[in-house]
Amino acid sequence: MLTRIDHIGIACHDLDTTVEFYTSTYGFEVTHTEVNEEQGVREAMLRINGTSDGGSSYIQLLQPVREDSPVGKWLARNGEGVHHIAFGTADVDGDAQSIRSKGVRVLYDEPRTGSMGSRITFLHPKDCHGVLTELVTSATEH
Amino acid sequence: MLTRIDHIGIACHDLDTTVEFYTSTYGFEVTHTEVNEEQGVREAMLRINGTSDGGSSYIQLLQPVREDSPVGKWLARNGEGVHHIAFGTADVDGDAQSIRSKGVRVLYDEPRTGSMGSRITFLHPKDCHGVLTELVTSATEH
Repeated sequence: MLTRIDHIGIACHDLDTTVEFYTSTYGFEVTHTEVNEEQGVREAMLRINGTSDGGSSYIQLLQPVREDSPVGKWLARNGEGVHHIAFGTADVDGDAQSIRSKGVRVLYDEPRTGSMGSRITFLHPKDCHGVLTELVTSATEH
Repeated sequence: MLTRIDHIGIACHDLDTTVEFYTSTYGFEVTHTEVNEEQGVREAMLRINGTSDGGSSYIQLLQPVREDSPVGKWLARNGEGVHHIAFGTADVDGDAQSIRSKGVRVLYDEPRTGSMGSRITFLHPKDCHGVLTELVTSATEH
């Protein structure tokens, strides 16, 4: 069951400049940074609020580390902006299976590693009214 | 102070079809619908979770009621997808003033009426790394 908006993923050309914008303009704080080589991104997580399922909602800022990564290609085509949205669940495997059975394309056969040790998968944007949609089970949930 | 992700605004061609997708695929429920003539949209709010500031996070589905509305023009240019993101605050007036003083363009001189009796304003996407960003004070906060 999807129980929270886990994060909004925003693609940017320069992570440091964009982090500076989000922290100085809004007063948000960076709570985590990492490089995800598999996804081809450098990223910063800014925790915005706690959620009623015991999790959190984040802004995730993403800078591609190579042009041929999915985020790199997306950025070249669209420019900076919202790249994806993510719903949190305690059971990414079960929810992915259930959603696949409804005819929505799930991009990975098995969930992969996301931010902060989470397990993630993505739904095809063409099956989701144009929205690249991630499902995420946080490290503390799995 | 911005204390939550209040909602993600998603533009769609047909509200009923898109609501059906979000409810049947994810199990979300529509908690509110309205027509906002000033913004030129029919909308459905799906409450996803409560937030640690006492508010909620929603998915907001938006169908333009006329082609020359901001959402109508955006949809013609971009197709369906994430139109804006919104941060919640108890003081939209103060936060808008503070953010304007940092050189970010605020689109309204005074906040206008948003979903469910909220007071809202928008920040120019070109000043926000490509993200149309809304600030919202809910009806129970003002």
